[in-house]
Amino acid sequence: MMTWDAVLATRAKRMSASEIRELLKLLDQPDIISFAGGIPDPALFPADAFRTAYADALSGGGAAAGLQYSVSEGSLRLRRWLTGEMAKLGVSCGPENILITSGSQQALDFLGKLFLSANDTALVGWPTYLGALQAFNAYEPNFDRLDPMTNRSAVDYRKTAEERGGKVKFAYLSPDFANPTGETLDEAGRQRLLGLADELDCAVIEDGAYQSLRYDGTPVAPVLALDCARSGGIENTRTLYCGSFSKTLSPGLRLGWVCAAKDVISRLVLLKQAGDLHSSSLNQEAMARVAETVFDAQVDKVRSAYRERRDAMLAALENHMPEGTRWTRPEGGMFVWVELPEGTDAAGLLKEAVETAKIAFVPGKAFFADGSGGNTLRLSFSATTPEKITEGISRLGALVAKVFVPAV
Amino acid sequence: MMTWDAVLATRAKRMSASEIRELLKLLDQPDIISFAGGIPDPALFPADAFRTAYADALSGGGAAAGLQYSVSEGSLRLRRWLTGEMAKLGVSCGPENILITSGSQQALDFLGKLFLSANDTALVGWPTYLGALQAFNAYEPNFDRLDPMTNRSAVDYRKTAEERGGKVKFAYLSPDFANPTGETLDEAGRQRLLGLADELDCAVIEDGAYQSLRYDGTPVAPVLALDCARSGGIENTRTLYCGSFSKTLSPGLRLGWVCAAKDVISRLVLLKQAGDLHSSSLNQEAMARVAETVFDAQVDKVRSAYRERRDAMLAALENHMPEGTRWTRPEGGMFVWVELPEGTDAAGLLKEAVETAKIAFVPGKAFFADGSGGNTLRLSFSATTPEKITEGISRLGALVAKVFVPAV
Repeated sequence: MMTWDAVLATRAKRMSASEIRELLKLLDQPDIISFAGGIPDPALFPADAFRTAYADALSGGGAAAGLQYSVSEGSLRLRRWLTGEMAKLGVSCGPENILITSGSQQALDFLGKLFLSANDTALVGWPTYLGALQAFNAYEPNFDRLDPMTNRSAVDYRKTAEERGGKVKFAYLSPDFANPTGETLDEAGRQRLLGLADELDCAVIEDGAYQSLRYDGTPVAPVLALDCARSGGIENTRTLYCGSFSKTLSPGLRLGWVCAAKDVISRLVLLKQAGDLHSSSLNQEAMARVAETVFDAQVDKVRSAYRERRDAMLAALENHMPEGTRWTRPEGGMFVWVELPEGTDAAGLLKEAVETAKIAFVPGKAFFADGSGGNTLRLSFSATTPEKITEGISRLGALVAKVFVPAV
Repeated sequence: MMTWDAVLATRAKRMSASEIRELLKLLDQPDIISFAGGIPDPALFPADAFRTAYADALSGGGAAAGLQYSVSEGSLRLRRWLTGEMAKLGVSCGPENILITSGSQQALDFLGKLFLSANDTALVGWPTYLGALQAFNAYEPNFDRLDPMTNRSAVDYRKTAEERGGKVKFAYLSPDFANPTGETLDEAGRQRLLGLADELDCAVIEDGAYQSLRYDGTPVAPVLALDCARSGGIENTRTLYCGSFSKTLSPGLRLGWVCAAKDVISRLVLLKQAGDLHSSSLNQEAMARVAETVFDAQVDKVRSAYRERRDAMLAALENHMPEGTRWTRPEGGMFVWVELPEGTDAAGLLKEAVETAKIAFVPGKAFFADGSGGNTLRLSFSATTPEKITEGISRLGALVAKVFVPAV
């Protein structure tokens, strides 16, 4: 019988099942109010637009192109549309600055693959997006804490990385309505980050997955736009912007993009060739059609629905959470981040939440590269109605109060 | 300005542009008869079936599922259909033995990622599929020559791998109508391969991309089927079968699969999560519908068309190639492999072929891990009519004769 352990790469030891993905299964239980998955509300998908787009893409001569192999860079039509969107964000670029990926998750995997040798250092937030930790982990890096609000010096980051046998290769962050915290980094923080990256001569990976989902407040320019302004144009920048259609049009087509200097995009194209040749030709053709026709209206629709849900969640937290708990007030995205009193075990709380309160959330520990954060949890408001949010948060508040305020 | 070279992983030095992908661009020149790309004939795609399938998958409640996130393992409906196909090949398995990938290229990338640490050894043919070399190269292995027709001992393979600082992790081969040679390994060769893998306690990666495309001769059981029979069932096997829809139904949806023991599939599911979450939900739902309704008829149609083209190519080679050249007689697939006299430079010949003879092929050197094979070339007959094949091969024959038989 095969001894699989004996033939695994050393990286395989660092791979473990995603708590988030496992928890998605809870959504299938209709009596649970789930704040667990960070998924869009399927009732909001522009299904009619997609139906028309596929019918069109599969008609006449187009079918042969949609069903055939295509170039690794991605559909020129879709990349051209994206240059227009990037221009609106303050990034002047051409199609040659864009690689189409199979969701922004694949972009993160490719960027780990491109930059990280074993023992190199990746700077990430404490907490950060779990999927980024999983993607980067495959390349056996060390993680160090990125916090653009502090003044830790480049010299100190570099020294730590060298002691661990590598270099700081990049800083990763999601500056707008981050998963899991919902927080946004202000422009001063973004400029400090670019200054630090300049000193370290490292790359910046900007995860813009939630960028379109702002509900109020003033938009902050993407790090890539600030970098373009500082450095005199996209070819001089060090930032790789990772975008996604998953939170606006559909995650089921698995389409995202990376926008960066040509010099690094051309290297990513080689990874794409070796990794899966190209993303689905047909999906790219259909997505281009849907994006061209309904993108702005769809973003308005999604924003309006999610804004109402965020408001319901913040009001319910205010009404029902006991003293000693704290939470973020996001200006967009899908998540509110809750800190329970120090020493609380949110993973233990989840078991009782599912079994007795019939609610679900994601314990926060998995989002910390150092295994801290046991007292934190992530709530998603995107796929639940305001009524259910109010009901579910009132149950969560009662559960937390019961656990932390023992009966006299 | 960013110094990208300073932040690249060591693996990035091993990545270079694919000659095949670059050559695909030649297909866009209408005056060239191209035998270069190994692509299906788009005129044969079942476009009507796909149009119906997408319309159906995007109707009613199904649209929400097709446009939403889904599980990393892949669509249960599609995996169930695949268990039926694997059973026909002599592999008894369940859906839990199957992972859906974004084409078999992604399966090769994931298998490299799962098994190869730097300096480990991968056994591959001389020549072998270029895309496999590209996928594995990212994990910085050594390559050693796999040749199940010789009697090189496991002891010798192991010693060589250890001297290079690692272990033999797997043997990779495409046993049916291989890319690039078109050759098929007989059952005795497959059994010898399994014996060698047993002695090395390594995995076997069976690339079944062309398996359905047999035009004549007697089918040989897949290595995985032989392994199941030897070892008493799929859970005891060491073989990972990589299948693809790209040569039968469509490459544009980017869908393939791996079939293997649950113990290794469950680890691949973790790589899939970290790599791109899952393959396109919508494409999987559409592919399941098309496979269920037209797969057998489509395979018959493709076989019939490609058989005629293979016959035209073999006849033309017989009629037009000068003495001193040799070529394979494939029983299926898309390729004929040509050996020119020793010392010939096929890459040099290509330049003249494109410029004066207006034909294209792929020089064989890129398919050799050791850089040999300069006198070889690959011809694809799948995407060209019999008439053009006859004309193109006559031009190739004249060109080769001119180069190797100087005028008196």
